[in-house]
Amino acid sequence: MNEQTQDSTEMRTLTVELGDRSYPIYIGQGLLDQAELLLRHVNSRQVMIVTNETVAPLYLDKLKQAFADRQLATVILPDGESYKTIDSAMMVFDELLRLKFSRSAHLIALGGGVIGDLTGFAAACYQRGVPFIQIPTTLLSQVDSSVGGKTAVNHPRGKNMIGAFFQPKCVIADMSTLDTLPDRELAAGLAEVIKYGLIRDPAFFVWLEAHIDGLLARDSEALAYAVEQSCRNKAEVVSADERESGERAMLNLGHTFGHAVETGLGYGEVLHGEAIAIGTCQAADLSRRLGWLSEDDVARIVALLQRARLPVTPPPVLDAEAFLEHMAVDKKNVEGQLRLILLEKIGRATLPMPVDIGLLRQTLQTYGRQ
Amino acid sequence: MNEQTQDSTEMRTLTVELGDRSYPIYIGQGLLDQAELLLRHVNSRQVMIVTNETVAPLYLDKLKQAFADRQLATVILPDGESYKTIDSAMMVFDELLRLKFSRSAHLIALGGGVIGDLTGFAAACYQRGVPFIQIPTTLLSQVDSSVGGKTAVNHPRGKNMIGAFFQPKCVIADMSTLDTLPDRELAAGLAEVIKYGLIRDPAFFVWLEAHIDGLLARDSEALAYAVEQSCRNKAEVVSADERESGERAMLNLGHTFGHAVETGLGYGEVLHGEAIAIGTCQAADLSRRLGWLSEDDVARIVALLQRARLPVTPPPVLDAEAFLEHMAVDKKNVEGQLRLILLEKIGRATLPMPVDIGLLRQTLQTYGRQ
Repeated sequence: MNEQTQDSTEMRTLTVELGDRSYPIYIGQGLLDQAELLLRHVNSRQVMIVTNETVAPLYLDKLKQAFADRQLATVILPDGESYKTIDSAMMVFDELLRLKFSRSAHLIALGGGVIGDLTGFAAACYQRGVPFIQIPTTLLSQVDSSVGGKTAVNHPRGKNMIGAFFQPKCVIADMSTLDTLPDRELAAGLAEVIKYGLIRDPAFFVWLEAHIDGLLARDSEALAYAVEQSCRNKAEVVSADERESGERAMLNLGHTFGHAVETGLGYGEVLHGEAIAIGTCQAADLSRRLGWLSEDDVARIVALLQRARLPVTPPPVLDAEAFLEHMAVDKKNVEGQLRLILLEKIGRATLPMPVDIGLLRQTLQTYGRQ
Repeated sequence: MNEQTQDSTEMRTLTVELGDRSYPIYIGQGLLDQAELLLRHVNSRQVMIVTNETVAPLYLDKLKQAFADRQLATVILPDGESYKTIDSAMMVFDELLRLKFSRSAHLIALGGGVIGDLTGFAAACYQRGVPFIQIPTTLLSQVDSSVGGKTAVNHPRGKNMIGAFFQPKCVIADMSTLDTLPDRELAAGLAEVIKYGLIRDPAFFVWLEAHIDGLLARDSEALAYAVEQSCRNKAEVVSADERESGERAMLNLGHTFGHAVETGLGYGEVLHGEAIAIGTCQAADLSRRLGWLSEDDVARIVALLQRARLPVTPPPVLDAEAFLEHMAVDKKNVEGQLRLILLEKIGRATLPMPVDIGLLRQTLQTYGRQ
């Protein structure tokens, strides 16, 4: 499904196989210093970089140098999930149009998942689609949102409710950008890393149990391996099911619960990865009630997430009814039928239809509330 | 490219061939009274009809009856191009989310091009894409915008600047809806009908010269034939080039000039078809200056548009410089290079690159200003 190569500078390259929309993922140290790599996929005179106020001071100048000979525009948004809105997308459109950027202009997303999702959505919609490049600068976006073409903005009534499937031209994951990532965000990224082990890669889960401390200590070799394995798993899933008609739904382990946490608390109170960690524990608990996971399996999952310094219990303000209310509009549902990704065992996800609502209520009423 | 069938009720069916996204176009009298036809492509419990204040009193009840057993929502927007905005799309999203409509909900566009483009864009974006159906109620939308999957909203700096390629599940062109269409809008639709003759169907152009009076008199047989031939031409072009990388650009004859007229005057001052008629005359004039069309060809084109009661000269307030300014951000341009569809002869379009700006200025400075 994916070719893997390592060149002399230790850059790893994976490929998301999608026919004429296939694209590479580059993983390595110091990639933002390699102008040739940056320019390889930008054959346009007009380039717009979208980033935020946190990332811009750190990496924007490197990009500006690489694109010094182009007509370069920048949009710098405030940092945070609360800016992943139609209004922010409109700021991008306003600037593109003010500068008369054409349908062949390229957009570059420099930042975490908010910037990547928003920039991808703007690229999908501007003049019905212009090329864009993902340069994820957080662990979470490197292992998840930058790969696979899911773009979106949020709506007050739900996350990612307005969006498009739109693939980037390439993903450049410069591991050096993790040096400046706050500890809390590093942990949030590990929630998605652990997810890949849980849904389809039991050996990777075992590796993570052995290396979680090294990852938290930012061991660069361990981090590069974790990003590579995560992207490989994601690329394989996306290649098999780009538009989430089947297998791709497995990537949503913990996400329906997690989105309810995010919606219930309001964006910005919890990080996405933190909400996913909580949701993963709830999914594990429900999987145990369905007779699939053992008590020991659930304990291993909760322990690994806890060791990754992630929250594993839902916030007290969200009771079972609040969860059910917020889960009802999750995108993964079909005609009001709740679609929850659960675990048959560690390393294999499943999508039971219909979900046993009685057992779900038990999980929501009791998990983490003892 | 297209199969054509006629069943017992004289309904004509064409097909837009796009692999697994192929879809039918139904053309006939009284199709909105055929509940079975409406239900055939809506296999969802949740249905939202988007329409406007002009069309709703005329046809909304018919649709409501057909979908009486579904969870039915309606959004009724004010009438007019000035409502083809992100704000209107947000009204659709707000209502979809308020009702917790899922990813399997279906949207129905009941109205002209504004409603069709807007609803299609909302369908493309809601939860990254839900199915939608086009029920065009104007001649313009029946022969052009409802077919081919170009969806969009306007931006203050340009028409259709925010959009998506997103194909409907079917198009239902009920010719009966033309009975209530104002004369001015009927004429505006004829501008696009005439375009098909000019760009690729010389026999149809000759037929139009012979039948233009019958069309204006709303001869139902003539109208049905004109819609069928227009949709057949459009379907063939779209099937060959869905995303306008080549041949589909030919459909934009008169549109770069026309968009400049619409942008320059402000949306709502001229109808889209009227602007296209003006732009077609300008394109014909420039084609003559390039040595392709004869004086007689240009006269035939202008005469047919005039007989269709369409404007054929640009508004005096728009001078050559204003045109060039507004044309510069048209989507059809690549990297600032002006891409104008012109005519080699009646029945064959061409895309000269680069455009001779000197001759273009002559057209803008002199055509219609004597």
